[in-house]
Amino acid sequence: MAVMSNQLFLINGEMHQHISPLDRGFSYGDGVFRTMRVHHGLPSNWHLHYQKLVADCASIGIVCPSADLLMNDIHRLFLDDVVEQQTSVAKIIITRGEGERGYAPPAITTPLRVVLKFPLPNYAEKNYTSGVELTLCKTRLGIQPQLAGIKHLNRLENVLARMEWRDDHIFDGLVLDTNDQVIEGTMSNVFARFGNELVTPFLNGCGVAGITRLQILALSKPLNLTIKESNLTLDALLNADEVLICNSLYGVFQVTKLLEKTWVTQPLAALLRKTLKYDEAF
Amino acid sequence: MAVMSNQLFLINGEMHQHISPLDRGFSYGDGVFRTMRVHHGLPSNWHLHYQKLVADCASIGIVCPSADLLMNDIHRLFLDDVVEQQTSVAKIIITRGEGERGYAPPAITTPLRVVLKFPLPNYAEKNYTSGVELTLCKTRLGIQPQLAGIKHLNRLENVLARMEWRDDHIFDGLVLDTNDQVIEGTMSNVFARFGNELVTPFLNGCGVAGITRLQILALSKPLNLTIKESNLTLDALLNADEVLICNSLYGVFQVTKLLEKTWVTQPLAALLRKTLKYDEAF
Repeated sequence: MAVMSNQLFLINGEMHQHISPLDRGFSYGDGVFRTMRVHHGLPSNWHLHYQKLVADCASIGIVCPSADLLMNDIHRLFLDDVVEQQTSVAKIIITRGEGERGYAPPAITTPLRVVLKFPLPNYAEKNYTSGVELTLCKTRLGIQPQLAGIKHLNRLENVLARMEWRDDHIFDGLVLDTNDQVIEGTMSNVFARFGNELVTPFLNGCGVAGITRLQILALSKPLNLTIKESNLTLDALLNADEVLICNSLYGVFQVTKLLEKTWVTQPLAALLRKTLKYDEAF
Repeated sequence: MAVMSNQLFLINGEMHQHISPLDRGFSYGDGVFRTMRVHHGLPSNWHLHYQKLVADCASIGIVCPSADLLMNDIHRLFLDDVVEQQTSVAKIIITRGEGERGYAPPAITTPLRVVLKFPLPNYAEKNYTSGVELTLCKTRLGIQPQLAGIKHLNRLENVLARMEWRDDHIFDGLVLDTNDQVIEGTMSNVFARFGNELVTPFLNGCGVAGITRLQILALSKPLNLTIKESNLTLDALLNADEVLICNSLYGVFQVTKLLEKTWVTQPLAALLRKTLKYDEAF
């Protein structure tokens, strides 16, 4: 337990607690999670995050703890950040709670809630000004419509994809599904611009449907772009006028390199960060 | 932590330990597990279980703890069973260990090993003498060749499939993949006999390749049957002369009912249990 020094966490609202080896999150990945920025003690886009957390819980039959309980945990964990005017990261994990051995949950389960505090990653300045480089992962995402879009705890595919590179100048890895469709980055959603049209892959077979992706999908009018979900092959992506990635921590970055393809720096990523107020926290 | 009363466990060989919320088994299901019978303190088919544990760990880049360490844990946890001549269940969980936030594992990780002791399920006598009834699950298994066959901790599909019924007279649920192929039960492997041929589904796209399935596949000669892997549709299965399910705890049971189809009780399941010495523990 040596890595704990810089982290703080609450388990069911209590300090100094640990996870039982009978917790179904540990046994089976039977739960969901979210990662979000907490700016001066306040979680950014809390309403969207909580809505998604409730929906993801419901998809696998877990009753999500109340927003009040979670906000109370966050207030306690991030109190220092209010005083110190800091931006940190909150990770919320909700599991189905403890069970006996076996896949069948007990008739009555008590969901476990874990809230963890982490420092905001130290993103390089050039990610904002120039963009980021992606690698193409060999790991493919399996098609499982019943779990598609959900940010559940079964994330071995992401782990294996992320283990494919250690080179620091690669920001994220692009992942395709087993049908050769572009889906996402290991920790990002993806958009590709073709002229006036900005598309992001459908996530009805696999992938995680993030909050920032959802926000961008609603910006057609203000940005005067057609923004929509679409099928997207790797060839199409490589022929896009521009490729963007997004998540709740860094907001939006332009992709400047993938395989042999390079893109010159363009203004849309910065515009999206500004529109979504992601710059305020940096 | 109220459910712990009847269980015992060791975490990295220590009592009274718990799981860190930073353990990657908890965060991402980044680990593997095994469940086995422990008969009078000795794990049945230990060599096969340990071999599979090492192979499954290796598939996702984890170095499995030594057999000596694990056997030592088992000896300590199941000491009472030697004296009391009892059969219990051991569950071994190996995770990649603790990490920081994010899918990338630290450069150096220390795998976590958890050994838990559970009572042997109280299987009904008629499961042995007559057989068991299955339901057909609506949940399908996604195709993911990279993880197929591995008993990893990403088991939400099994959980969702198992949540489809609560009726006690259903012993297990049959699960198909998204290509309509029969794969397995939620906690069992499946065999179907057509005349002199006994087939079990290929598990190169999904499913868990269990130890008992592996043992049965090696019995062609002694049983004078052709036993092999094959594609298997639901229609074919329903037209089989006999259907069997197996796992490391109950051994082998005949299926007597699935959907509208019934099968009369036949001697193969009992013969297989006897051949594999599963009866000795009951």
